[in-house]
Amino acid sequence: MITGDGLLGPAWSGAPIDGATADPAVLRALIDAEAALARAQNRPDLADAITSLADEASGPGAASAAAGRDGDPDVPAGAWRDGLHLAGHSGGNPVIPLVKALPEGAHDGATSQDILDTALMLVAARARRLILPDLASAAGALGELAREYRDTPMPGRTLTQHAVPTTFGLKAAGWRSLVLDAYERLGAVTLPAQLGGAGGTLATLSVPLMERFAREAGLAAPLLPWHVLRTPVADLAGALAFCCGALGKIAADVLVLSRTEIGEVSEGSGGGSSAMPHKSNPVHATLVAACARQAPALAATLYGAMAAEDERPAGAWHAEWEPLRALLRLAGGAAFHTAALTGGLRVHPARMRENLSLTGGLIVAERVMGELSRQIGKKAARDLLETASRDAARLRMPLRQALELACANAEISVEIVGAPVIHPDPENEREERPGTIRLQSGLFEPTGYSGAAGELVDRALDRHLKEIADVELPR
Amino acid sequence: MITGDGLLGPAWSGAPIDGATADPAVLRALIDAEAALARAQNRPDLADAITSLADEASGPGAASAAAGRDGDPDVPAGAWRDGLHLAGHSGGNPVIPLVKALPEGAHDGATSQDILDTALMLVAARARRLILPDLASAAGALGELAREYRDTPMPGRTLTQHAVPTTFGLKAAGWRSLVLDAYERLGAVTLPAQLGGAGGTLATLSVPLMERFAREAGLAAPLLPWHVLRTPVADLAGALAFCCGALGKIAADVLVLSRTEIGEVSEGSGGGSSAMPHKSNPVHATLVAACARQAPALAATLYGAMAAEDERPAGAWHAEWEPLRALLRLAGGAAFHTAALTGGLRVHPARMRENLSLTGGLIVAERVMGELSRQIGKKAARDLLETASRDAARLRMPLRQALELACANAEISVEIVGAPVIHPDPENEREERPGTIRLQSGLFEPTGYSGAAGELVDRALDRHLKEIADVELPR
Amino acid sequence: MITGDGLLGPAWSGAPIDGATADPAVLRALIDAEAALARAQNRPDLADAITSLADEASGPGAASAAAGRDGDPDVPAGAWRDGLHLAGHSGGNPVIPLVKALPEGAHDGATSQDILDTALMLVAARARRLILPDLASAAGALGELAREYRDTPMPGRTLTQHAVPTTFGLKAAGWRSLVLDAYERLGAVTLPAQLGGAGGTLATLSVPLMERFAREAGLAAPLLPWHVLRTPVADLAGALAFCCGALGKIAADVLVLSRTEIGEVSEGSGGGSSAMPHKSNPVHATLVAACARQAPALAATLYGAMAAEDERPAGAWHAEWEPLRALLRLAGGAAFHTAALTGGLRVHPARMRENLSLTGGLIVAERVMGELSRQIGKKAARDLLETASRDAARLRMPLRQALELACANAEISVEIVGAPVIHPDPENEREERPGTIRLQSGLFEPTGYSGAAGELVDRALDRHLKEIADVELPR
Amino acid sequence: MITGDGLLGPAWSGAPIDGATADPAVLRALIDAEAALARAQNRPDLADAITSLADEASGPGAASAAAGRDGDPDVPAGAWRDGLHLAGHSGGNPVIPLVKALPEGAHDGATSQDILDTALMLVAARARRLILPDLASAAGALGELAREYRDTPMPGRTLTQHAVPTTFGLKAAGWRSLVLDAYERLGAVTLPAQLGGAGGTLATLSVPLMERFAREAGLAAPLLPWHVLRTPVADLAGALAFCCGALGKIAADVLVLSRTEIGEVSEGSGGGSSAMPHKSNPVHATLVAACARQAPALAATLYGAMAAEDERPAGAWHAEWEPLRALLRLAGGAAFHTAALTGGLRVHPARMRENLSLTGGLIVAERVMGELSRQIGKKAARDLLETASRDAARLRMPLRQALELACANAEISVEIVGAPVIHPDPENEREERPGTIRLQSGLFEPTGYSGAAGELVDRALDRHLKEIADVELPR
Repeated sequence: MITGDGLLGPAWSGAPIDGATADPAVLRALIDAEAALARAQNRPDLADAITSLADEASGPGAASAAAGRDGDPDVPAGAWRDGLHLAGHSGGNPVIPLVKALPEGAHDGATSQDILDTALMLVAARARRLILPDLASAAGALGELAREYRDTPMPGRTLTQHAVPTTFGLKAAGWRSLVLDAYERLGAVTLPAQLGGAGGTLATLSVPLMERFAREAGLAAPLLPWHVLRTPVADLAGALAFCCGALGKIAADVLVLSRTEIGEVSEGSGGGSSAMPHKSNPVHATLVAACARQAPALAATLYGAMAAEDERPAGAWHAEWEPLRALLRLAGGAAFHTAALTGGLRVHPARMRENLSLTGGLIVAERVMGELSRQIGKKAARDLLETASRDAARLRMPLRQALELACANAEISVEIVGAPVIHPDPENEREERPGTIRLQSGLFEPTGYSGAAGELVDRALDRHLKEIADVELPR
Repeated sequence: MITGDGLLGPAWSGAPIDGATADPAVLRALIDAEAALARAQNRPDLADAITSLADEASGPGAASAAAGRDGDPDVPAGAWRDGLHLAGHSGGNPVIPLVKALPEGAHDGATSQDILDTALMLVAARARRLILPDLASAAGALGELAREYRDTPMPGRTLTQHAVPTTFGLKAAGWRSLVLDAYERLGAVTLPAQLGGAGGTLATLSVPLMERFAREAGLAAPLLPWHVLRTPVADLAGALAFCCGALGKIAADVLVLSRTEIGEVSEGSGGGSSAMPHKSNPVHATLVAACARQAPALAATLYGAMAAEDERPAGAWHAEWEPLRALLRLAGGAAFHTAALTGGLRVHPARMRENLSLTGGLIVAERVMGELSRQIGKKAARDLLETASRDAARLRMPLRQALELACANAEISVEIVGAPVIHPDPENEREERPGTIRLQSGLFEPTGYSGAAGELVDRALDRHLKEIADVELPR
Repeated sequence: MITGDGLLGPAWSGAPIDGATADPAVLRALIDAEAALARAQNRPDLADAITSLADEASGPGAASAAAGRDGDPDVPAGAWRDGLHLAGHSGGNPVIPLVKALPEGAHDGATSQDILDTALMLVAARARRLILPDLASAAGALGELAREYRDTPMPGRTLTQHAVPTTFGLKAAGWRSLVLDAYERLGAVTLPAQLGGAGGTLATLSVPLMERFAREAGLAAPLLPWHVLRTPVADLAGALAFCCGALGKIAADVLVLSRTEIGEVSEGSGGGSSAMPHKSNPVHATLVAACARQAPALAATLYGAMAAEDERPAGAWHAEWEPLRALLRLAGGAAFHTAALTGGLRVHPARMRENLSLTGGLIVAERVMGELSRQIGKKAARDLLETASRDAARLRMPLRQALELACANAEISVEIVGAPVIHPDPENEREERPGTIRLQSGLFEPTGYSGAAGELVDRALDRHLKEIADVELPR
Repeated sequence: MITGDGLLGPAWSGAPIDGATADPAVLRALIDAEAALARAQNRPDLADAITSLADEASGPGAASAAAGRDGDPDVPAGAWRDGLHLAGHSGGNPVIPLVKALPEGAHDGATSQDILDTALMLVAARARRLILPDLASAAGALGELAREYRDTPMPGRTLTQHAVPTTFGLKAAGWRSLVLDAYERLGAVTLPAQLGGAGGTLATLSVPLMERFAREAGLAAPLLPWHVLRTPVADLAGALAFCCGALGKIAADVLVLSRTEIGEVSEGSGGGSSAMPHKSNPVHATLVAACARQAPALAATLYGAMAAEDERPAGAWHAEWEPLRALLRLAGGAAFHTAALTGGLRVHPARMRENLSLTGGLIVAERVMGELSRQIGKKAARDLLETASRDAARLRMPLRQALELACANAEISVEIVGAPVIHPDPENEREERPGTIRLQSGLFEPTGYSGAAGELVDRALDRHLKEIADVELPR
């Protein structure tokens, strides 16, 4: 459900993160923070009054928006929210008009920033409860892909060109590794409540109250009020940008491998086109890539806001609100679409094999080079192979044939034998060089040259998802 | 009115830019683009059907939201918009579900990007119609301030320290100059319609249709379809970031000059505090500063999106939508608050004079230095004055007295005469140096040393606002 | 020649922009600014002394580094520059120690910022004299490509998938259009000298001196001192980021089209690999893409520095120096490599034709859809074609055959005729629908469907390079 | 010593980080990586040959530059480095020409990226060995300041206005807390060697070799080759941006508190001015602030580079090199200047007390408000105090007197008693309200109202610096 400005973000495409970050959810979190303060001050009746006012004024929508997954979170067009807005102008932040609407006695001793910072941490905590399960789900799907395709060869590509073979299993294992990194970094961010009073000295408050407040709000207790020590916001910025970047790597690869000419993977359910009936677009990957492109700049704004002068800066604090929300939404959207993408990805080993053969053996030129070097020295081998490679590419001729041609031109005799390749004993590497080059034909086959890929997949799969307290993971 | 996610942006504080950029306004622009296409294709009935569907479905709110200044633009919680959303998932952009809701025959030959790009240019054009008048209004107010305080002395400050005197008139004239720069840059951006069809070749369309479409949409006609030639978006990014930066300079100065210890200006109606009854905060300047901190990163994302592969990139295009909207909102919010700030700014010349005296004459040390150099040479003058300055600061002693002390210690005779300062004839600069230093006492007064400030104000005021067609300016 | 920290930037690969932006060139520009001031103050002997000191101290290297194209600009490891450095610490900018090394009387009335700002504008002007000719050269090469391949069909690709055919001519014309946009934007930036004195009031200076200074420095005369009105820096930031983005689009396309599986273009001389003898990498495009990725963030820092408090900000000004140099270097590196890339690009029309055929006609499904719609209505046509497209992709069957299959399954009779396609008269679009679908076989050929591409190429080529005074263009 | 392009970065002012990050240090690290590979391959003679070649070619300068603190790291203007450069052009990275200069057998099985990534991690590790001790030194100095000024009252400021009193001890304790956060985040980043071969499969290498290589290079062993899993670079980006932001907060505060009108702190040795003999600028804070402004954007580029396609991306990897070096240099410069700043900071408690009195008691209005509320209710108290505050500010009258005036106007009797304030028992908060307001005169004193500041300082000082292996800290 789009509850805020979802039409142009990842949310328009179904990600529930929109509900957890839109205006009603922020409003709900503000009220939750005020209620937690009342409870921490041992005023349960006041807390109830605050909460019930919220329920009444913002309707079931806002409440369920906070939960994020369902409900009817359409913006409550009520006079109350408009009142907030109209009154907001003169104060400098949306808590000032909110407080006017609260029962007498609420907000006692707190400053606006205490409530807004705490509310944004609540929004972050609730958003994280959507993001982490999606990351876990993607990690699960990628683990299965890595296992299933552990030894499926495909072209390794560097600077857009075929380089040497790799395996799809290693690719998937690498993706999973990044997802686990993202999961751990986001899960490790401490989300504290903020309470400091007008100048951060707890002037009419106290340290024990600060700790009770955090407990009531369901957030971590801070060592110090962090009104101008923005570690939690900066840590979130880094972890969310990391998350988008990690998922962006998966998207970048899927977009390449989905190309019409490459076709090695496809999304389970591609997107249609308003003009072209035949199109099946990698829509999930596209949206993840779009999130990854937007996140870094928002994180930069948040890192920049750390240099906050005084006991409340004039601008640096205010500049955090919207980028933090946007980052949560981007990370949530990216995780949502990555879970869908990885869960439904279709892999096409046959196309991988076809593509491996495209260069007529050039993709294993490194292996041929190694064997040639052993027989005739590195320099001579390189000369020969560069000539052969150039001809193979220019004349669209198999490398094996091009090498024979190159040898003929250089008056070197060469024999290519149909027997299976035997990996030479490295101890004997510098054996005598016979007059005739003797190569196994299997050396030119674009398979059997994936190095330690399988072993690396196994190493990667031995790493497991760390449990994060307070987050319910998908089974 | 907050219609989208306005609670955390500048919009919450009353800026109408929110209405012009929120979801309903985007939706309206999408529909306007589809209707313009139908009109360009000589199908007025179809165009009417598209428009009326829009009016009915989105209610008066969306329509008036596009206008931005008034109306009741609360989000229409209708099934139609939700339908858009729910269907959106599989396609990759919000136009695909929109087209399904349009009458048969609409969208003919166009691709989603044609409609969305055109709609975003419409949103930009409508937003610009809010921003430019606010800039013009600020320029007007600043012109009046520059004129009124043309010769009002105040401390010039560099690296946070008093340097030499300047005038408030020159400061205001400089601010106005930046506002005019912003006005011209934003006004000069060409906002074209986009029409290219599935691959940008106008395959089932034509060049004349492209031009008719632009005319019907009320936008510029492009030379080429710009689906992957993102000049209009990059130009907007630069102009909007410039705008926020220019206004951010004004805010930065107002924030310094408003400090409790400085008090040289104050906002007409300062903001209150939820905890401190006495506070009168520079709220407009704070919100402008917050906009200026957020804009550059968003512009960076848009510049980065220029590197868009193929005939429609998988991600780079999608990454433009939200940052472009956010930038329009920030520039609009900044312009709105700057208009209010400059229109109501209170200037306190008495505090400026008090502050000028704070350093006991150090602020005109450069002038004393100049006269001393003429009499005893640059190096001796500098030595003497550095000693005197250090003592003046350390002992909180007037510079005049500290200089007498320094001369005494150096066994140099000095006479300070109570006559008015006579600016020495530069032609006679290198006159003979008598045995006794002879200084006019007026040299130590922190006034009458504002250089060409007045002349610079006049030069600046000779520059006038350029008229921008299609924008109604404030009288 | 690498003169500064060139090893990790685009400069390491031969771009002369490094020489024009490295430390010796900055030092030379600082000295040129001081000399221009002396000349403006009618002290030619002093100016000569300043210049000769510079020549002696920094050696021929620094002088030629400023010219950028040749010479021996290795860093002069002289005591003088080290002296600058060692003394630099206490002042806050590198002009303060420089002034100490200058002859008596130099720098009179100026402040450090006057000299450093003017020097950076000189560096920018000199860098621009390298960048614009490279842009002009690229525009020339692209114009030739657009003309030569005006009608060469190739697949248009959207979201990584084949969409409809386009032409390589249109692609090249679009690239050229962006290069012209970049050229005009960069050429239009005004680069003024800066002179204001300690607080920007010209206290011991004058407006006529400011204008003479600009003339002597070879820069534009400013309306006002712009020490805290950073329009020139922001304009440069935008134009340079635009430049990198525009060239980044070309690089992004070349990287896609160079892929082993696509092979539609290749760089004239691809780069080698340290491990793989056969590799021929699109190195120019890679380096341009790397520049395009770095530029936006640096521009963001510069836009952010506009919000500069007081008459000289404590940090915002200092934060401009390095990003401005880095941006010039990136734009220069990108232009250098784009000139090489476009000048040597090899185009492979045969591979384009092969790729057009890859989807068995799906790439012209839009055209078939158009004809089918005319015969059996839009909805029925879409249903039929979606089925056929899915089968064609799934079974790797030509679209024509898949459509016959789909018609058979739907019990619709269809006749496909071998005659050439006749483009239907749009006036008769809604003709009667006969019982049998009758399609020309040519409808399924992936050629002859490039819409207005040729006409658009002609329009684009009618736009010419604007002359920029003071820049020598390649013939 | 400036060895690279130091003239415009923080390095020009003496920070040794320049030596550790400039071209010679990078070159040295590249060679160290090649030598480590040879050692890992059990070829000690080859390793020695590589190293000795390096020593000979680059001179003692490069070697000591890597150490960073001393030596003579001037750029070796040797033909060898130029040869690297000239050959560099065709390959796409600086390792390719380097390999050509190495002895036969070097670089065996590795790809350029293995060496360059490993070298950059070495540069980062060496830079970190400079940065962490500076952070530790700053933390030490701040701890002493916090202890010494634990109870020194000063104005707390929010949105530029006096809010309530705080203490300088709490401010210093907060700064220290950020420095510890930065120290822990930077210290926790894992810096692994990279080895994967041409496509990251270890094709001609092995997992044990990868681990030996890491050990020989003195870096962490990776779980997987991370050629396209950029976690280490992204982690560095976040930690370095955090570091700059944390130090930027200190700088922002020092810049405010150093203002001529405020004068509560000053740098031990302020910077001079080229025009104004009396200036004593907060130069360290200015340079730290400049670093903090530049770092976030560079981190954004690095986060953006995570989305790296294939087994080596065409641009994303290349875009990391320069921003990573620049970030290290900024963090190093910021840490260097912060250590100097905090080590020499002069604190002026007398000015703090003067400033506390500036508002005639308004700064403790919150306390008066609390007492008034207890006596006459919250609403009546707020009304009375808002009137009194407005009058106090408008008429520059002490709050106490303004309150008496307001009471008189409202016909409320008030008695202000000279006795010391007795903090009311919170249990009896809602006592009966007598007809006469009775306030202790001490309520209006701007001292004794710093809340839990002292307790918070103690909590903060209980947190200690974590030891980081491999880093030598200052005693």
